[in-house]
Amino acid sequence: MLRKVLVANRGEIAVRIIRECMDASLETVAVYSKGEEDALHTLMAGEAVCIGGPRPADSYLNIDNIISAAVNTGCDAIHPGFGFLSENSDFARACEDNDLKFIGPAADVIDMMGNKSAARDMMKRAGVPVVPGSDGPVTTAEEAVDVAEQIGYPVLVKASAGGGGRGMRRADDREGVIRAYSEASAEAESCFGNGELYVEKLVEDPRHIEFQILADSQGNVIHLGERNCSIQRRNQKMIEEAPAFGFSDQIRKKMGAAAVRAAEAAGYENAGTIEFIMDDEDNYYFIEMNTRLQVEHPVTEMVTGVNIVNEQLRIASGLPLSLKQEDVRISGHALECRIAAEDVYRNFAPCPGRIDFLHFPAGNGVRVDSAVYNGCEISPYYDSMIAKVITTGGTRLEAVRRMRRALEETAIEGVSTTLPIQDLIMYSRDFLRGTYNTGYMEKHLQEILDIYEAAGGRNESTDRK
Amino acid sequence: MLRKVLVANRGEIAVRIIRECMDASLETVAVYSKGEEDALHTLMAGEAVCIGGPRPADSYLNIDNIISAAVNTGCDAIHPGFGFLSENSDFARACEDNDLKFIGPAADVIDMMGNKSAARDMMKRAGVPVVPGSDGPVTTAEEAVDVAEQIGYPVLVKASAGGGGRGMRRADDREGVIRAYSEASAEAESCFGNGELYVEKLVEDPRHIEFQILADSQGNVIHLGERNCSIQRRNQKMIEEAPAFGFSDQIRKKMGAAAVRAAEAAGYENAGTIEFIMDDEDNYYFIEMNTRLQVEHPVTEMVTGVNIVNEQLRIASGLPLSLKQEDVRISGHALECRIAAEDVYRNFAPCPGRIDFLHFPAGNGVRVDSAVYNGCEISPYYDSMIAKVITTGGTRLEAVRRMRRALEETAIEGVSTTLPIQDLIMYSRDFLRGTYNTGYMEKHLQEILDIYEAAGGRNESTDRK
Repeated sequence: MLRKVLVANRGEIAVRIIRECMDASLETVAVYSKGEEDALHTLMAGEAVCIGGPRPADSYLNIDNIISAAVNTGCDAIHPGFGFLSENSDFARACEDNDLKFIGPAADVIDMMGNKSAARDMMKRAGVPVVPGSDGPVTTAEEAVDVAEQIGYPVLVKASAGGGGRGMRRADDREGVIRAYSEASAEAESCFGNGELYVEKLVEDPRHIEFQILADSQGNVIHLGERNCSIQRRNQKMIEEAPAFGFSDQIRKKMGAAAVRAAEAAGYENAGTIEFIMDDEDNYYFIEMNTRLQVEHPVTEMVTGVNIVNEQLRIASGLPLSLKQEDVRISGHALECRIAAEDVYRNFAPCPGRIDFLHFPAGNGVRVDSAVYNGCEISPYYDSMIAKVITTGGTRLEAVRRMRRALEETAIEGVSTTLPIQDLIMYSRDFLRGTYNTGYMEKHLQEILDIYEAAGGRNESTDRK
Repeated sequence: MLRKVLVANRGEIAVRIIRECMDASLETVAVYSKGEEDALHTLMAGEAVCIGGPRPADSYLNIDNIISAAVNTGCDAIHPGFGFLSENSDFARACEDNDLKFIGPAADVIDMMGNKSAARDMMKRAGVPVVPGSDGPVTTAEEAVDVAEQIGYPVLVKASAGGGGRGMRRADDREGVIRAYSEASAEAESCFGNGELYVEKLVEDPRHIEFQILADSQGNVIHLGERNCSIQRRNQKMIEEAPAFGFSDQIRKKMGAAAVRAAEAAGYENAGTIEFIMDDEDNYYFIEMNTRLQVEHPVTEMVTGVNIVNEQLRIASGLPLSLKQEDVRISGHALECRIAAEDVYRNFAPCPGRIDFLHFPAGNGVRVDSAVYNGCEISPYYDSMIAKVITTGGTRLEAVRRMRRALEETAIEGVSTTLPIQDLIMYSRDFLRGTYNTGYMEKHLQEILDIYEAAGGRNESTDRK
């Protein structure tokens, strides 16, 4: 059984984990960087250890200092939260080497899931659908065309060694593939010194659907249903919901079983998330596994009644899961808005500063996970997310209405935030209809900004700085 | 269907109701007294009308001004909250006379339940147990003895016209009754000009158990289980929980059926509460019905998932209840602490003033219903309760642990509060064992204050002023 847990993180997720440890009667140790002496996570934990300067590399990414803090305070476990070292297998190994239970999967499993092509191969073997494409590299343009004709257009011709969009071309027909092959090959050769290419189906504007997994050390693996996280801006999720709108029990069962198979194949332990993309015809493809707690885990907690962080602590203690797959019930609907301190008029640039006045919404059906308080400083060194506002309802519309009310009740003065944009999305037709996908923000952002502008948003935004 | 609701109240319950109306897409009108221009309920509602000076009689108890505000703003309904005019039948009648739906029972039902002896008679006829006693007045000491011998000692000999403990004597045996009869009769004669007496069984230190009732206009009546509200100081509840510790399904079913019969007998509509006292042998007796929303309604909401204020709005709209008795499930456990701005070292005297810094607990399993915010003023004119902290858990112990954490996380600076006392109760043996009754506070308060004192409580308390 665990006794004392070091939380190797900051901000709202550190607070979330410290609260849960307190609720479970575990002792807690916070770590903090210089300047975060008065941060909520520092104040709340039973003990707090300064682990270095404000730059992440000096503190929250500093494995040696974190391990020392855990050893010196007599901890028996470390919870990595998300971001920072949460998917760093060296950190997981350093924990193991120091007799500290890493609250997450084994280091080797982190490594395997971190290698996207190895993960893809494993999923294929486990019978989990992956994005259709060539088996390994193609060696001629004709071979690329054959693959493309087999999987259907549009496709992406991609450099095996590629990244960041370099050495990658879209193709919509035979001629396109031939042109793409030659262009991408040349670009890959010049960029990476390796012209090797492969072909993959292009799923345009898919939905981002992910399944929450729990796996204990005794081989029990369950899923807690799905989340739709398609409201993203530049791959950053802004709004998440559970369950996914329009999902049938049948598709949930099928995808859930695939997610469980994926976790079983990986020999997974603790909480994790299997991410899929899904097209308009409900075809779904594994894209990756997140081997850690997810920012948006609360929406799943609210509709299942399962306390995911508590399950993580149970699993790390060697206890079995507190429920079986057949006990998982999805009831009602939950939404989450990630409120970030960003200036929507300056391309969502982070907006650090002092919160001069703060009032969060509350009451029935509203949960706020946050680490900010009246008068606190938002640091420029870390992620700009300052709060997660979560609402529930018997129906999706009820959760949406409650989110509108909750966002409109929130008052954050001193820094600009994304809140007005999320509030306007709660009134947008495509969002209300549930017919949105990852293309939503690109399609609607300008229109939303125009509405905000017409409503006096720029003044409001300026007033806050 | 309702469209626009005036909330005839202030403080946290006005905020609770306004939030619920917003969640249900109803328009809202707040009323406020002079000086409450910046109160949260005033700021949150769609419209707000000043209805008079700060003294309750001039504003929140001023029927004419409230009705005018509702008529002038085009409201079609009034929610009275609790306290103030919520159990005033003249107010309910004034609403009816002005075509305003009173969100509560009919005026005649309020009257009937307000007359404690008429309510007692009705309950007896409906087969609901009442505290055993004489059928009406007794006319001689011998008759009083006969009744006492029949119902068993100890008994209370009480003046029919009595109140506030005057004309009331306890008796533990035959001689005691004879003495009590003569003393009480003389005292009643001199105090009330009416020496008429009756005899009632004295239930010493009972538990206070109450059942939440919902009744729609179509004759459906259900109960949502019980609450144990026995942690009281001078008849003011301080901590409530649902379900009651140690309650069997069998006793819940039996008492719940009695509560439903009671509401049916009264022709009740809307939300109400049937209050019982219960002795150590689980004998229970009706004491009164509260014909309104109860302060402690959230604990029932948390364990049943039923939104009681939303049901009130549905019922007032003429809709049927959203669920049937067989759909009511009690799951997990919920606790509520009523945090009051009071000075525990000055006999819990109200402690109005400015809240200089405020931080409420949050996260999974924590709900705070409140109307205070950073920098707000606590008025000396109204009830001293400033927040309700509600926690839930899969088990009672989990809810208790979470309450400890939630209370310890709370920071309220500028005014003294009851919070440290409630926090210490969460560690007290009798509370943890669940073997507490309405005698708890009298028995334990000094010991709790001593522990608080030893822990430096007086300094902490002084610092806050």
